[in-house]
Amino acid sequence: MSTFPSDIEIAQNATMSHIKDIAKKINISEDDLEYYGKYKAKLPLHLQQENPKGKLILVSAMSPTKYGEGKTTMSIGLTDGLNYIGKKAIAVLREPSLGPVFGLKGGAAGGGYVQVLPMEDINLHFTGDFSAIEKANNLLSAVIDNNLQNTKYSLNLDPKSIAWKRVMDMNDRSLRQIIIGVGAKANGTMREDGFNITPASEVMAILCLAKDLEDLKFRLGNIFVGKTLDGKAIFARDLNVVGAMATLLKDAIKPNLVQTIDGNPAILHGGPFASIAQGTNTAIATKMGLSLGDYVVTEAGFGADLGAEKFLHIKCEQSGLKPDAVVLVATIRAIKHHAGLAAEDFKTENVSAIEKGFCNLEKHIENMQQFGLNPVVCINAFPDDTQAEYDKLKELCVTKGVTAIVSTAFVYGGKGSAAVAEKVIAEIEKGTANYKPLYQPTDNIEHKINVVAKTIYGANSVEFSPKSKAQLKMINDLGFSHFSVCMAKTPASFSDNEKLIGRPTNFDITVREFEIASGAGFIVPLLGEVMRMPGLPAVPNAERIDIDNEGRIKGLS
Amino acid sequence: MSTFPSDIEIAQNATMSHIKDIAKKINISEDDLEYYGKYKAKLPLHLQQENPKGKLILVSAMSPTKYGEGKTTMSIGLTDGLNYIGKKAIAVLREPSLGPVFGLKGGAAGGGYVQVLPMEDINLHFTGDFSAIEKANNLLSAVIDNNLQNTKYSLNLDPKSIAWKRVMDMNDRSLRQIIIGVGAKANGTMREDGFNITPASEVMAILCLAKDLEDLKFRLGNIFVGKTLDGKAIFARDLNVVGAMATLLKDAIKPNLVQTIDGNPAILHGGPFASIAQGTNTAIATKMGLSLGDYVVTEAGFGADLGAEKFLHIKCEQSGLKPDAVVLVATIRAIKHHAGLAAEDFKTENVSAIEKGFCNLEKHIENMQQFGLNPVVCINAFPDDTQAEYDKLKELCVTKGVTAIVSTAFVYGGKGSAAVAEKVIAEIEKGTANYKPLYQPTDNIEHKINVVAKTIYGANSVEFSPKSKAQLKMINDLGFSHFSVCMAKTPASFSDNEKLIGRPTNFDITVREFEIASGAGFIVPLLGEVMRMPGLPAVPNAERIDIDNEGRIKGLS
Repeated sequence: MSTFPSDIEIAQNATMSHIKDIAKKINISEDDLEYYGKYKAKLPLHLQQENPKGKLILVSAMSPTKYGEGKTTMSIGLTDGLNYIGKKAIAVLREPSLGPVFGLKGGAAGGGYVQVLPMEDINLHFTGDFSAIEKANNLLSAVIDNNLQNTKYSLNLDPKSIAWKRVMDMNDRSLRQIIIGVGAKANGTMREDGFNITPASEVMAILCLAKDLEDLKFRLGNIFVGKTLDGKAIFARDLNVVGAMATLLKDAIKPNLVQTIDGNPAILHGGPFASIAQGTNTAIATKMGLSLGDYVVTEAGFGADLGAEKFLHIKCEQSGLKPDAVVLVATIRAIKHHAGLAAEDFKTENVSAIEKGFCNLEKHIENMQQFGLNPVVCINAFPDDTQAEYDKLKELCVTKGVTAIVSTAFVYGGKGSAAVAEKVIAEIEKGTANYKPLYQPTDNIEHKINVVAKTIYGANSVEFSPKSKAQLKMINDLGFSHFSVCMAKTPASFSDNEKLIGRPTNFDITVREFEIASGAGFIVPLLGEVMRMPGLPAVPNAERIDIDNEGRIKGLS
Repeated sequence: MSTFPSDIEIAQNATMSHIKDIAKKINISEDDLEYYGKYKAKLPLHLQQENPKGKLILVSAMSPTKYGEGKTTMSIGLTDGLNYIGKKAIAVLREPSLGPVFGLKGGAAGGGYVQVLPMEDINLHFTGDFSAIEKANNLLSAVIDNNLQNTKYSLNLDPKSIAWKRVMDMNDRSLRQIIIGVGAKANGTMREDGFNITPASEVMAILCLAKDLEDLKFRLGNIFVGKTLDGKAIFARDLNVVGAMATLLKDAIKPNLVQTIDGNPAILHGGPFASIAQGTNTAIATKMGLSLGDYVVTEAGFGADLGAEKFLHIKCEQSGLKPDAVVLVATIRAIKHHAGLAAEDFKTENVSAIEKGFCNLEKHIENMQQFGLNPVVCINAFPDDTQAEYDKLKELCVTKGVTAIVSTAFVYGGKGSAAVAEKVIAEIEKGTANYKPLYQPTDNIEHKINVVAKTIYGANSVEFSPKSKAQLKMINDLGFSHFSVCMAKTPASFSDNEKLIGRPTNFDITVREFEIASGAGFIVPLLGEVMRMPGLPAVPNAERIDIDNEGRIKGLS
């Protein structure tokens, strides 16, 4: 397997169909396509039905290692697998964020023979959605600071109260905490600010949750900006900037159609970073997929403690969607990682490590069952895995009442996920999925955090820092206690401490501070030391990326 | 004229042709088009010939009022006028910057019946070029700060020496001067930084001056970043980030094809803000236009003291282009402004004000003649202008040896510029244009600044602030004295003081500081109080922009 080609080599050697031919497969007329080159197109909102008939398959995962366990890869593989066995399935996935492409992780367009194409475009600017979100977010920031500067039309905003941050789609640690407005009076009011990464923008969450343009504007208007010097809450609508923000999003609200290597339709739209954001693709794209196909495969990022929990408690609750099946992606290497093995030992057969590390996957399985959803486990095969390890893992899954199936889609495309596809169809046909939320809107914020921390993470208790306590009081005073919670936490552990691998017990969760997302309808508790702006590693992937004089790119993965 | 429709109303009621039909007019095959929707397309670099045969017409202007005098409008009008009289002409123009769309100025896609379409898209994200430039610029910033943070692979950069700023395409005064890296050690090294507006990025200048992808990479590598603690100069190439930056620009390097309301081809690509940047469209787009059409109408922003001077001294010198004709746009209102009249008096006939305010246009005419180029004056007609005012202005132009012609293209489209077009063709056929630069590469930076300040602006002398003197020494020590100068100055006056209207005399120019653009091949002297990041006005245009539930936009202009 040492000569197995790289993701970008496979992608560049794949033959793409014109996107109009992909669209034809799901009965989209050419006239409805807004082309971005020959292989990408935006889709009009009218393709979204109110109550679509398709079945929804949610793909999540066990707690991943820092390299990721191939959740996007397995989602694409499952879509191709479903099509391989004759089903009309569409992958409805998130768009990659540009920041991590230059950092450690690389791109997020699948891998091996299960990728979405054109992978270079998808991993770079794609159709400009993230840039539009960034601009809408930062226009609000500019208008806020302009209002502080402006004596004539001043809203009397208290600079210390401003809760709205700027964003940039770049892993740039130096912008996490900054002082703006330094120098001359013409340079604005000096105050502390910071940049989050663009997927963490509330504008991204609003785009992902909005039903249509009208709802988008309503939600943008509800963004909490800060308070006046005499304590009155100020929202984006008070700054008369909602129309301009929505105008910036006029194209970003339309889902993007691309194709898998197998030539199946994939809709990519909105929302990565389930660790620090709501992290699912747009509700519009999911409903559109369910309107155009019989099966939609969608994805919720990182482990199911983050991605699936938010998919269920935030996206399903707000949009009325319910999954008909859930898939949890696991890998032998991640199981070994949670058994405490070092990366250099992942390639050696170790059945007892499977037994030891299973506890992590086990907790994710139990969590899905608590939501009324019995998952299928999909094992993403790696070259050094052994049959004995697979057998042990399958056996352990059976003890939890679930079936584990190996997928070789990375190497064989959709065919390699045919067995997973058959099993998922069988689960859907059983019709036993019965999603129920673990908390209600009427529960207060503190209670909601406790439910997620104790029931999903397995924590003993939740501690609130002095800062977060003061913020919690303000959140309640503002009348925001009916909102959901969108936890920001390390994806490496069930706890807020990335070193606690496996299935930690006897730990507490610390709420460090809150961010408010009143347009999106949730509150973001920041747990432990989590950051909403990543940094670059010592040798960033940017150093490996290059383009030759003919425009051929290398180093994306 | 009070019921004359707004720019956006005219644009929305215009019937657009599919862009493939526009392409057909200049013999571009459909296969060469990379569509962005039905009405925009990117063009491949192979359409650019090495020594194209087309004739180049440069449109510049007298010193504008803050509303602009319709230079883009007249450039589009002249293109339509040339086509109207049977010539094969292409407008090759700059893309608008997003920042001013939300500020005072609004968009920059022409006006009335001489606009480029689709104006909403062109004024918003268009095909993503500015966003790509912004990301390439800010990736370098993130990598610089990551290197400061990084002990293992440190280049030993002196944080105080870093000359590279971040950029954002937003009028955001609060980001002009900032402190980054505040807080925990993980948040990076604390240092002063600032954001320029994206068109002021050196990456934009590099894109505008590059011949091809290879030259783009070479220039990106030559970007001066700062110095090590022991005084060694560090360039972008030393940070191994050039390939990734160029990869981000893979689509931005391709010119964009759109159409005028009259249905003529227009190529928009790169470069506004001639006040603070080089401010012309890309050399690639200009050469491509000259390869595809018999006449190219291009534009150099603000007054000719800024736009045309830089077009000639920077773009022509680096690319080998030479204009075959020059047009200076004037308006009766701008002449009255330079006579000292207040805006409320612009609408009253005032022939003696024309006589008084002519001095501004006169100096621009003389400047073009100094370059060996005798301009045609194009008077952009406004509803309240009178024939007596036109007659006086024409008479004054004759005394300078030039012809002034009124254009009514704003109201009548290309037909309204037919007379201007005829005159420009006559000038080209005379063949007397004989461009010569006013300074040579071998002159030092101080000399070059003096030449522009004295010969073009009419200044008595140039003063250098203590900061700029120290920087000048560094520039010479770095071996950068052969570079051009790209002056950053208010466009409101020939001087660096926006209050000195007309044709000021007896004034000095102050160089406050320098920015270095060694990849672009120029040094930016910042004159007076000029800022490279604009602010928003008290009531920004953002407040007037809206989109309805069907996606129809209003408030762009």
